[in-house]
Amino acid sequence: MGPLPRTLELFYDVLSPYSWLCFEVLCRYQKIWNIKLQLQPTLIAGIMKDSGNKPPALLPRKGQYLKSELSLLKHHFQVPIKFPKDFFSVIIDKGSLSAMRFLTAVNMETPEMLEKVSRELWMRVWSRDEDISEPQSILAAAEKAGLSAEQAQGLLGMISTAEVKKKLMEVTEVACKYGAFGLPVTVAHVDDQTHMLFGSDRMELLAYLLGEKWMGPVPPALNARL
Amino acid sequence: MGPLPRTLELFYDVLSPYSWLCFEVLCRYQKIWNIKLQLQPTLIAGIMKDSGNKPPALLPRKGQYLKSELSLLKHHFQVPIKFPKDFFSVIIDKGSLSAMRFLTAVNMETPEMLEKVSRELWMRVWSRDEDISEPQSILAAAEKAGLSAEQAQGLLGMISTAEVKKKLMEVTEVACKYGAFGLPVTVAHVDDQTHMLFGSDRMELLAYLLGEKWMGPVPPALNARL
Repeated sequence: MGPLPRTLELFYDVLSPYSWLCFEVLCRYQKIWNIKLQLQPTLIAGIMKDSGNKPPALLPRKGQYLKSELSLLKHHFQVPIKFPKDFFSVIIDKGSLSAMRFLTAVNMETPEMLEKVSRELWMRVWSRDEDISEPQSILAAAEKAGLSAEQAQGLLGMISTAEVKKKLMEVTEVACKYGAFGLPVTVAHVDDQTHMLFGSDRMELLAYLLGEKWMGPVPPALNARL
Repeated sequence: MGPLPRTLELFYDVLSPYSWLCFEVLCRYQKIWNIKLQLQPTLIAGIMKDSGNKPPALLPRKGQYLKSELSLLKHHFQVPIKFPKDFFSVIIDKGSLSAMRFLTAVNMETPEMLEKVSRELWMRVWSRDEDISEPQSILAAAEKAGLSAEQAQGLLGMISTAEVKKKLMEVTEVACKYGAFGLPVTVAHVDDQTHMLFGSDRMELLAYLLGEKWMGPVPPALNARL
């Protein structure tokens, strides 16, 4: 028996494209590194409010840079990101409250589906420029991920319950306690230490902390181990 | 004869610890990749003013994160960074105007010394928590880098000339035109395209754009090629 896997927590929101990059990298490496990945749906609006931070794209020059950088990173990470046409309406005005409550319900009821449903929500908002705020949009993502219409409806019914609302708030507060001022946040529990890493660009540092090998955002060894 | 080297411009300020990380990585890879590195001393205060951005450490939770992250990155990058005790006095109040004017003068008069003098200024402010705003501090760094006392004095005399002031302003304006909202900024001229990359964590993406191999912040091939 080898050493026990180290636990990694990924705090993310589907509104955040860098969360998507980080999510895909960690989903790939969980099959290669000796880690146990815990996906933690979090509300980015709550993190911003609590930390006093602002979405980076609100500064015009940063917004312009993010757009051009993501068009390079999509190739490098092999994640089909496309900037939404009306960024402010989609990201700032509509937000992700219902979508993240839905993912919270998925995590509570059928956690084995959380990865797929999260990815389908990202595919909608950050790849095909489709809505994720309306009930029909969320149901469509859930069914595309492989949930039955009944399951999806049941989970959607849960998003207005106190239990789900509370759980999403609690996870967001945990991220804040780790020091989050944005997302993604990866929390690595290595030996007796806890390291909080911000952003999708700290995965090589994470490998260093874990004593694992970094092989870029698309690890070539992925197929060999599957 | 192989293909012509691609030109990389590195816009940096010695007040910025992430600029130091980026600088060391590019200095290492310039001996390995087919690139020509142009060091561009820039004034970060000018970039912040022009873009409307604020130093990240002014947000308390970001400041705390930067401090803990840099203590990990120093090992990973093998760059001896140490957070100054009185960050606000050193970084926000004192700033880097004289130091960056001095590096501008070095770049104009004796560019082959720019790498070493820049490194010695970083060693003072971001490793040994020493001043870089007083004339004596700048002279000490210059002499440690290998300039004679006479050369250092001559260059120090230049920092109040219109020519040096104008040059630093011009370089800062060029960085702004590339879209800078902070430092470091790396501008890669590849084929007929110009890519602006922000931060010390885009070096793997840079390798991807250059078609070169990324071997981490401390490339093991460094010794082999020297």
